[in-house]
Amino acid sequence: MIRLEFAIELKYEIADNPADFVFNIHAAHTSWQSVFAEALSLSQPVETAMHADAAFGSRYLRFRAQPGALAVRYDATVDITHHLEPPARIQEVPIAGLAPEVLPFIYPSRYCQSDRLRRFAAREFGHLRQGYWRVQAIRDWVAQRTTFTVGSSNVSTSAMDTLVEQVGVCRDFAHLMIALCRAVNIPARFVTGIDYGAPQSMGPPDFHAYVEVFLGSRWYLFDPTGISLPMGLVRIGTGRDAADVSFATMFGSVKSFAPVISIDAVDDPAGGFTLPGHCVDAISTHGEPAMSR
Amino acid sequence: MIRLEFAIELKYEIADNPADFVFNIHAAHTSWQSVFAEALSLSQPVETAMHADAAFGSRYLRFRAQPGALAVRYDATVDITHHLEPPARIQEVPIAGLAPEVLPFIYPSRYCQSDRLRRFAAREFGHLRQGYWRVQAIRDWVAQRTTFTVGSSNVSTSAMDTLVEQVGVCRDFAHLMIALCRAVNIPARFVTGIDYGAPQSMGPPDFHAYVEVFLGSRWYLFDPTGISLPMGLVRIGTGRDAADVSFATMFGSVKSFAPVISIDAVDDPAGGFTLPGHCVDAISTHGEPAMSR
Amino acid sequence: MIRLEFAIELKYEIADNPADFVFNIHAAHTSWQSVFAEALSLSQPVETAMHADAAFGSRYLRFRAQPGALAVRYDATVDITHHLEPPARIQEVPIAGLAPEVLPFIYPSRYCQSDRLRRFAAREFGHLRQGYWRVQAIRDWVAQRTTFTVGSSNVSTSAMDTLVEQVGVCRDFAHLMIALCRAVNIPARFVTGIDYGAPQSMGPPDFHAYVEVFLGSRWYLFDPTGISLPMGLVRIGTGRDAADVSFATMFGSVKSFAPVISIDAVDDPAGGFTLPGHCVDAISTHGEPAMSR
Amino acid sequence: MIRLEFAIELKYEIADNPADFVFNIHAAHTSWQSVFAEALSLSQPVETAMHADAAFGSRYLRFRAQPGALAVRYDATVDITHHLEPPARIQEVPIAGLAPEVLPFIYPSRYCQSDRLRRFAAREFGHLRQGYWRVQAIRDWVAQRTTFTVGSSNVSTSAMDTLVEQVGVCRDFAHLMIALCRAVNIPARFVTGIDYGAPQSMGPPDFHAYVEVFLGSRWYLFDPTGISLPMGLVRIGTGRDAADVSFATMFGSVKSFAPVISIDAVDDPAGGFTLPGHCVDAISTHGEPAMSR
Repeated sequence: MIRLEFAIELKYEIADNPADFVFNIHAAHTSWQSVFAEALSLSQPVETAMHADAAFGSRYLRFRAQPGALAVRYDATVDITHHLEPPARIQEVPIAGLAPEVLPFIYPSRYCQSDRLRRFAAREFGHLRQGYWRVQAIRDWVAQRTTFTVGSSNVSTSAMDTLVEQVGVCRDFAHLMIALCRAVNIPARFVTGIDYGAPQSMGPPDFHAYVEVFLGSRWYLFDPTGISLPMGLVRIGTGRDAADVSFATMFGSVKSFAPVISIDAVDDPAGGFTLPGHCVDAISTHGEPAMSR
Repeated sequence: MIRLEFAIELKYEIADNPADFVFNIHAAHTSWQSVFAEALSLSQPVETAMHADAAFGSRYLRFRAQPGALAVRYDATVDITHHLEPPARIQEVPIAGLAPEVLPFIYPSRYCQSDRLRRFAAREFGHLRQGYWRVQAIRDWVAQRTTFTVGSSNVSTSAMDTLVEQVGVCRDFAHLMIALCRAVNIPARFVTGIDYGAPQSMGPPDFHAYVEVFLGSRWYLFDPTGISLPMGLVRIGTGRDAADVSFATMFGSVKSFAPVISIDAVDDPAGGFTLPGHCVDAISTHGEPAMSR
Repeated sequence: MIRLEFAIELKYEIADNPADFVFNIHAAHTSWQSVFAEALSLSQPVETAMHADAAFGSRYLRFRAQPGALAVRYDATVDITHHLEPPARIQEVPIAGLAPEVLPFIYPSRYCQSDRLRRFAAREFGHLRQGYWRVQAIRDWVAQRTTFTVGSSNVSTSAMDTLVEQVGVCRDFAHLMIALCRAVNIPARFVTGIDYGAPQSMGPPDFHAYVEVFLGSRWYLFDPTGISLPMGLVRIGTGRDAADVSFATMFGSVKSFAPVISIDAVDDPAGGFTLPGHCVDAISTHGEPAMSR
Repeated sequence: MIRLEFAIELKYEIADNPADFVFNIHAAHTSWQSVFAEALSLSQPVETAMHADAAFGSRYLRFRAQPGALAVRYDATVDITHHLEPPARIQEVPIAGLAPEVLPFIYPSRYCQSDRLRRFAAREFGHLRQGYWRVQAIRDWVAQRTTFTVGSSNVSTSAMDTLVEQVGVCRDFAHLMIALCRAVNIPARFVTGIDYGAPQSMGPPDFHAYVEVFLGSRWYLFDPTGISLPMGLVRIGTGRDAADVSFATMFGSVKSFAPVISIDAVDDPAGGFTLPGHCVDAISTHGEPAMSR
């Protein structure tokens, strides 16, 4: 089992009028990721509401803050179990066999216009043998074609832009891989989190975005940026694309400052906790009920 | 109560290989719309799977069809109850007061880029007094600015295109109204159905797309095209935009023919069924649980 | 020499008010294309103005027409001389060596966003040996990747759309090839005309769009659709992309009907006129003054 | 007469291989703007080529630089004469009356998609009385709707984006105004230069972009940002939009630093030079030959 400890510090300055916030920064509650300890502190005495998404375990924190400074700090220790599977055993699922909960993830979304990429994806990936390796080929194609450049994209950048311009940050890599998977009828979705194990050359820890693809009877993890260790990924939000799982949504006149994030892994083999490492197997932290027909 | 009888006939030609279909053509099951009778017939002997979306009552039919011709016919008789409310009593709901189920409908989606329309919407509608009338003003603005022209848009056309080009069909009107509502923090969603009562000058009956906006504690109906009688609308699919609720999604090489649709209203006051008519009140056919904090 | 005889018939219906027209349907006057005979007839008694573009030999006809029907017929017989060159001898020209008249054709334009394709083009074509063969490789890449489908694009479709969607008509093929050439610093431009020799399976003769690329000291012809015989192309308009050389631009409320076009080649070897044929050499019908430094 | 003295300092760092540069930083030579003195200095001993555009007086400097640092400094003193005209006398020109040289400026271009704005522009400005005041109304509409925000746009931002998002920098204001003018059949073009007289709150002097509109028999100046004094504008480049007149175009791997610009006006009434001031008349620094029919 992997135990990760992380902290997220956010700062805002609210102008003249109260502003509403929706945060999606809590570690998700799933059967593969349990929260051992967590703490939230807010610099303003606000009344908060929290709700969890039953399907994904995502948690949303909402409140109204007053003009002036706002600081939000969230600390958590999470324990993550990984399902490992040899890639050769993992098959794609025909449309007719997808559970209803999975079906929405083959459709286009705000930033993943898979409807416009059908010919492109068919030409590049249509002839490959189906299975985990085809998805891995899509992931590698995105990784090789796209240059990671901070500041190269903005909140309007979509998979189509990234396909053409071949540059972006983690959300752009994820959007492009998702769009290409859906374009060949493979369900794919967008996950946000914090990652342990990125090389220091990538700068200080930050929010990360990665991909889950539905194969066999599970959602498997892929990181097309190649930055993270997939075993070192904490799940926060899960959705169709970045439009669903922004870590902070603000309604009002608010100035944001850069998040400050730290993460560590517990190295205690005796206690049952090993450091995240590289892994040749496919990794999943989310199963799915079988389709009932 | 309104009783509507309608039929949908769809025809396809499938090329060399079997193709998967997902249909969303069944009348939705909700507490306001009950299906008195229905029948489905398929020209191929296929094994079908049906599942219903718990939140919206939408029903999805899936099957794999063989090469050759495929005909699908669906007949239904539905009874619809309307909640009517004087507009003056209907308030907007602050972000902090929205139920979690409603919250997703303030975010941008594939065809409704509300994130890019915030300044535009604030300038046009930000100063208006909040409430039902503000939404009606948005609806009227879209209706007055946009010309209904068959063939003027395609499946890639989004709210941003329609805002600029000022021309479109029903889905484009709906996308633009939805995007503008969300841009001023009002939850809005996309509904597909069949409409009774469109003038004959609009051509033969067809699938229709319209808008639901969340106000007070309910979803209220709006038709920015002005084509339909809102009381004569049957609900089929409900989603964030057209990407969620296509009436037919095909996976494979399939040629589609134009749908043939008919609809009639039962005129039997003694039996409790009146014809759909104009109505000055706000109309809702979908409530929502109160927010639990 | 090639002698081609063609006719263009255009029909319009003008609504309530007079409308202005600009036509670019006359065969261009260049040192390689001479007009042996031509005739223009208009169904309305209008005063016309004609002006020629000195750089390209394009001719523009302008007039104001009255409400009602308008028919335009243009007949021409043109003689075309071709400069043929073995591809192996043709080099690319460094930026520093381009004549000022050529320089504008390395910049992006309305439909050819070469600025956004730099990385893409560098990856696909940056490593190829420079010269005519590199441009031929770009032409072949576009030809192989793009499916010719009537009705698949519209007047807003740009090179970026065609790159992603891989479908289009002749103007889309041309825009994509032009954008890719400019993205690797090779000047390229858009030519409209009529083509002799397209297979009957492509339907009746129509306006055609093709590409000229500047190499060595000349503009060489390429047709990425592969539909035409390059030796059978008549030049009408020359510009940066379709925004510059529409065959008809209307200002007012005008309904257009489909053009009717015919073309024939004179087969009179004794008189010096041979039929257009296939040719392994590079073909040019437009030289350029050397750069004066 | 106005005499302005300005200096432009540019710095680049060229990576491994030689890189080609095209600069458009010299003051244009026109009959209304004469260059009293100028000096160019380059930090590398390169062979340069200069050519001037006959139509606009723009001058283009080209050279190939070697790896390492490159500094470019241009100093100039220019004398500008203004044609002033009472707005009430200035009429729009019908399409049929436009000189051939003016005609290209009614067509759409890379960043000014006037073809897509026809309905929008007709609704907003179609009913206004024609003439200078209509153009002034378009200018005021853009100025009032658009917020000047440094960093809010990028090199891909077009008039359509700015119309929807209502934010931008000077080039975006100019593109939107140009697109709206062309959409109601008024020729408009893009001018780059340096401006004297911007308030200090706008930061240090920088390159500026503004608009020329063809009315009567001349091109009149408009600055939709409202930042500059139109009488204090130096003309450098003139084109259809920013794609034509970038102040620096680089071919190769080059890092750019922010330009450093200074400008001053000569206050010497005895010598015939007055400071640029506000002016109620329409201002033109570019006439055009009458149309020859």
